[in-house]
Amino acid sequence: MPVYTAPTKDMQFVLHEMLKVGETGIPGYDELERDFTAAVLDEAGKLAGEVLAPLNAVGDQEGCRLENGVVYTPTGFKDAFEAVKEGGWNGLDLPEEFGGQGLPYVMGTAVGEMFVSANMAFNMYQGLTHGAISAILAHGSEAQKAKYLPKMVSMDWTGTMNLTEPHCGTDLGLLRSKAEPQDDGSYKITGQKIFISAGDHDMSENVIHLVLAKAPGGGEGTKGISLFIVPKFLVNEDGSLGERNGVSVGKIEEKMGIHGNATCVMNYDGATGYLIGELHKGMRAMFTMMNEARLGVGLQGYAQAEAAYQNAVAYARDRLQGRDVTGTKNPDGAADPIIVHPDVRRMLMDQKAFVEGARAFTFWGAHLIDKAHRSDDKDAEGLISLLTPVIKGFQTDKGFEMAVQAQQVYGGHGYIEEQGMSQFARDARIAMIYEGANGIQALDLVGRKLAQDGGKHVMAFFEMVKAECKAHDGDERMKGFVEPLKAASKQLQAAGMFFMQNGMKNPNAALSGSYDFMHLMGHVCLGLMWARMAKAAYAALDAGTGDAAFYETKIATGRYYMARQLPACAMHLARIESGADPVMALDAEAF
Amino acid sequence: MPVYTAPTKDMQFVLHEMLKVGETGIPGYDELERDFTAAVLDEAGKLAGEVLAPLNAVGDQEGCRLENGVVYTPTGFKDAFEAVKEGGWNGLDLPEEFGGQGLPYVMGTAVGEMFVSANMAFNMYQGLTHGAISAILAHGSEAQKAKYLPKMVSMDWTGTMNLTEPHCGTDLGLLRSKAEPQDDGSYKITGQKIFISAGDHDMSENVIHLVLAKAPGGGEGTKGISLFIVPKFLVNEDGSLGERNGVSVGKIEEKMGIHGNATCVMNYDGATGYLIGELHKGMRAMFTMMNEARLGVGLQGYAQAEAAYQNAVAYARDRLQGRDVTGTKNPDGAADPIIVHPDVRRMLMDQKAFVEGARAFTFWGAHLIDKAHRSDDKDAEGLISLLTPVIKGFQTDKGFEMAVQAQQVYGGHGYIEEQGMSQFARDARIAMIYEGANGIQALDLVGRKLAQDGGKHVMAFFEMVKAECKAHDGDERMKGFVEPLKAASKQLQAAGMFFMQNGMKNPNAALSGSYDFMHLMGHVCLGLMWARMAKAAYAALDAGTGDAAFYETKIATGRYYMARQLPACAMHLARIESGADPVMALDAEAF
Repeated sequence: MPVYTAPTKDMQFVLHEMLKVGETGIPGYDELERDFTAAVLDEAGKLAGEVLAPLNAVGDQEGCRLENGVVYTPTGFKDAFEAVKEGGWNGLDLPEEFGGQGLPYVMGTAVGEMFVSANMAFNMYQGLTHGAISAILAHGSEAQKAKYLPKMVSMDWTGTMNLTEPHCGTDLGLLRSKAEPQDDGSYKITGQKIFISAGDHDMSENVIHLVLAKAPGGGEGTKGISLFIVPKFLVNEDGSLGERNGVSVGKIEEKMGIHGNATCVMNYDGATGYLIGELHKGMRAMFTMMNEARLGVGLQGYAQAEAAYQNAVAYARDRLQGRDVTGTKNPDGAADPIIVHPDVRRMLMDQKAFVEGARAFTFWGAHLIDKAHRSDDKDAEGLISLLTPVIKGFQTDKGFEMAVQAQQVYGGHGYIEEQGMSQFARDARIAMIYEGANGIQALDLVGRKLAQDGGKHVMAFFEMVKAECKAHDGDERMKGFVEPLKAASKQLQAAGMFFMQNGMKNPNAALSGSYDFMHLMGHVCLGLMWARMAKAAYAALDAGTGDAAFYETKIATGRYYMARQLPACAMHLARIESGADPVMALDAEAF
Repeated sequence: MPVYTAPTKDMQFVLHEMLKVGETGIPGYDELERDFTAAVLDEAGKLAGEVLAPLNAVGDQEGCRLENGVVYTPTGFKDAFEAVKEGGWNGLDLPEEFGGQGLPYVMGTAVGEMFVSANMAFNMYQGLTHGAISAILAHGSEAQKAKYLPKMVSMDWTGTMNLTEPHCGTDLGLLRSKAEPQDDGSYKITGQKIFISAGDHDMSENVIHLVLAKAPGGGEGTKGISLFIVPKFLVNEDGSLGERNGVSVGKIEEKMGIHGNATCVMNYDGATGYLIGELHKGMRAMFTMMNEARLGVGLQGYAQAEAAYQNAVAYARDRLQGRDVTGTKNPDGAADPIIVHPDVRRMLMDQKAFVEGARAFTFWGAHLIDKAHRSDDKDAEGLISLLTPVIKGFQTDKGFEMAVQAQQVYGGHGYIEEQGMSQFARDARIAMIYEGANGIQALDLVGRKLAQDGGKHVMAFFEMVKAECKAHDGDERMKGFVEPLKAASKQLQAAGMFFMQNGMKNPNAALSGSYDFMHLMGHVCLGLMWARMAKAAYAALDAGTGDAAFYETKIATGRYYMARQLPACAMHLARIESGADPVMALDAEAF
């Protein structure tokens, strides 16, 4: 059975040495001292490794079941849910006034990585609740906040997001769910929603659904959409639970993975709903939460890769097969452990360099969100808005690829479900799809984010990369970082230039290259992260503090990323510069 | 439910216009006239589409089960097996003296593609039998051939290959299964074999296991290994079935995919076995079949991608979501079909260009095997020996990637098992692992095949690519093919040069780049195929024969491959030239 050990030391390195969270001046960051973050992360890591991880395979094998309208979660999930609840983990980064601990989002992100690595399907019950809380925090009335948030922060009640319908996912303007206004100010919600993660279950008293539906008078397409709170059980004025609302589970989907999470078809049959935020401005309300939600999915990508990687390393150290071509390493054994073989090393280094780079990128993203929210920093907000589709799209593609590669290290044993490596790949697969399929992320990046605020944020990003390179001018040790980063950044700028010059005449010239642009930018971002981590590692080595081997490993891992991954940038640029013609040459009938 | 339509026209294009099978002078090829191949392929296509494809999801959902020592296959498999048997499809390319039809291997390959696309798990029962027959044909005595082959060619009996044991897969020198010589010339086989595809089932009277085991006196490692025939039921002198042999199924593995195939743990408890080929030369006997077996797995890679692609196209034409950014295409509908979107096009073109290129490459490989066997052509044998790891490794990696991409076209629906797209990805996954994991293919290519016969075959390959480019010198229409191919070929040669210059001093310098070399060479091979297909398409257009739209589509698809895929070659070269240092920098403990 797979194991999981929380990478606390790597996380602390990112928090304290790369991001230097203690020195940012962001409100709430001053308490993030090393001892404090260590205590939080150690505690979370213990829960993840000892309670959540052992249930990962159980959830995969048992799945959820629907019986007489009740959704049952896999054996052990309920107890684990109680443990997470008792620890107050859901409220870690939520406001104290509703029962949270008010820590920065970056801490919630670090803890979230551990929980997702340990058991992604399980963590989604909490993750969706967190997302629903954010929506209510941002758009709910004071009365709504008071009514729903304390119970949701404590996880007595969980939450869901209801967007997709059978005929529409990306194109929400097509949605058909209806909201009819009632005399008492509430609405009757009618329609069918599908792919509702954590749609229902047996672990909490109530489920608070956030539902997109069309109320009369809003006009065509997305303009007519509003957002509603639809509780499974109506909530009385005194906070006690009232009657069962007209919402039910039609079906639990059979999926490729995340079996432990109940992905439900939800039927709304004149269910009572309460408008949240402005009428007909439901799409805007959804979008304000999108950065966090998408960052959370980008995190799932590398968190699955991390869990898979840990097990691939253990297997590669343990499995004896063949001999090191440069000389026997295990003379007393029948063969050497496969970790001696260069191609196994290549796979493990790919995984390690990606995961650590992605962790830095994701924590940086969370840090930017904190900066935007807690310091009201508009530049940080613009930057994270630009980076979000990259975090989501690039990291989930690569995360899946790396989980598949970790499975490959196991050879034939990786294909056997018992080993658990298949589950990492199957679970990771969904992250490329939900919360906006990765093609949509690329479209968002190229079609919207590049030009946002007159292109100000992408220009700022380029300047940031340039400044990072410049800061190390003449530093021989940093050459292996600065030169590839400089080259990749130029390729990214050339791609942007190609879009500017060609996209006006023919939007398809830009859109045909959007996916490659997202990946090209992903590599530049991870290259930037590695340059920053190398700088931090050299600083520690120069100071002679801490574990020298740890810092040297960090630098070698970064060098690997720069030497072996950044060459992908030229490929992406070449594809982008081939323009729309190859992509759009055929008639639809010719396929 | 997914559908499958055999791509007969595309296959005929490869056979008759690219390979020009009718003009090769290879014995047996003269009967391959267009009408004849059309008749064979149409018939096979009908069986694949109407009988095998509808059982694909059934096999996935039901899987196989072991009850009281008996393996039961999924509902419908038995009837389908009878249909394949009655059609004589297993013997299509097997010798007439044992009941086969004696057609060239290239025809068996074309039919095989159809069966694999339609139902990979089902086709493996036949595929493994075919492999076992090849082994007996090549190494069996006349008496063994007479005893086993007619029943195996007719599929009254099926076959298996038993190599792997729990502690050894790649490194067969470690194997522990024992063969004790008996007075009557037979052996008693004892040991456990795992991952035995089609290990047992309820569709045939008998199963003929080919088993690697160690007989006394052969020395250490692979030298002591011999190959044995171990029938499930012993066969009497008159050909009737005798007593049950001491071989049993210990377990059916739960796998990520190919659930319809029984992957068995086989226990040999003093089972009677008969030496096949020379004593202690079992490894050599296995290796002679390897080109065919590996080509068969390389075929599985693109055949799964083909089936997934067909469904992705259908979905993309059908699913309405969003509007074409260059102007509405479906004004009467609520939205345009998603095939209008450039990023959906990119995905479909990636798949189409890969599958058609891989088909050409695989058929060419089969054609080389025919040339080697039927015309005793040593150069053809050397060339296919070089290309085999590329066909296997590159095509299964890309085939899986493309099946995953086809699943992506479905958005959230692709993650739901009911849609069948997950199965294509899960089934395709195994092809990267079995018959030598892809890292082993890369090792075989760089560690053995490049230097084989003094590097003669790789030099011949380079000359062949050069000649192809030269033949189109100054042909403006072919520029989009020749220039990228020339550049890619130079990159491949530079990679080979890097290995020569650095691999002698440090073998890890070559082995660290082996995987990238395999992919680089894969792109050059598909580039070469596309140049040849473009040439054939232009020739047909010039002659004004046939369906002009078909040929124009072929050319546009090839241009896509050259413009959008060959840029990967520079990336692979850059990685290769970064050498062993980044890959091997860390101690094993540092991971």
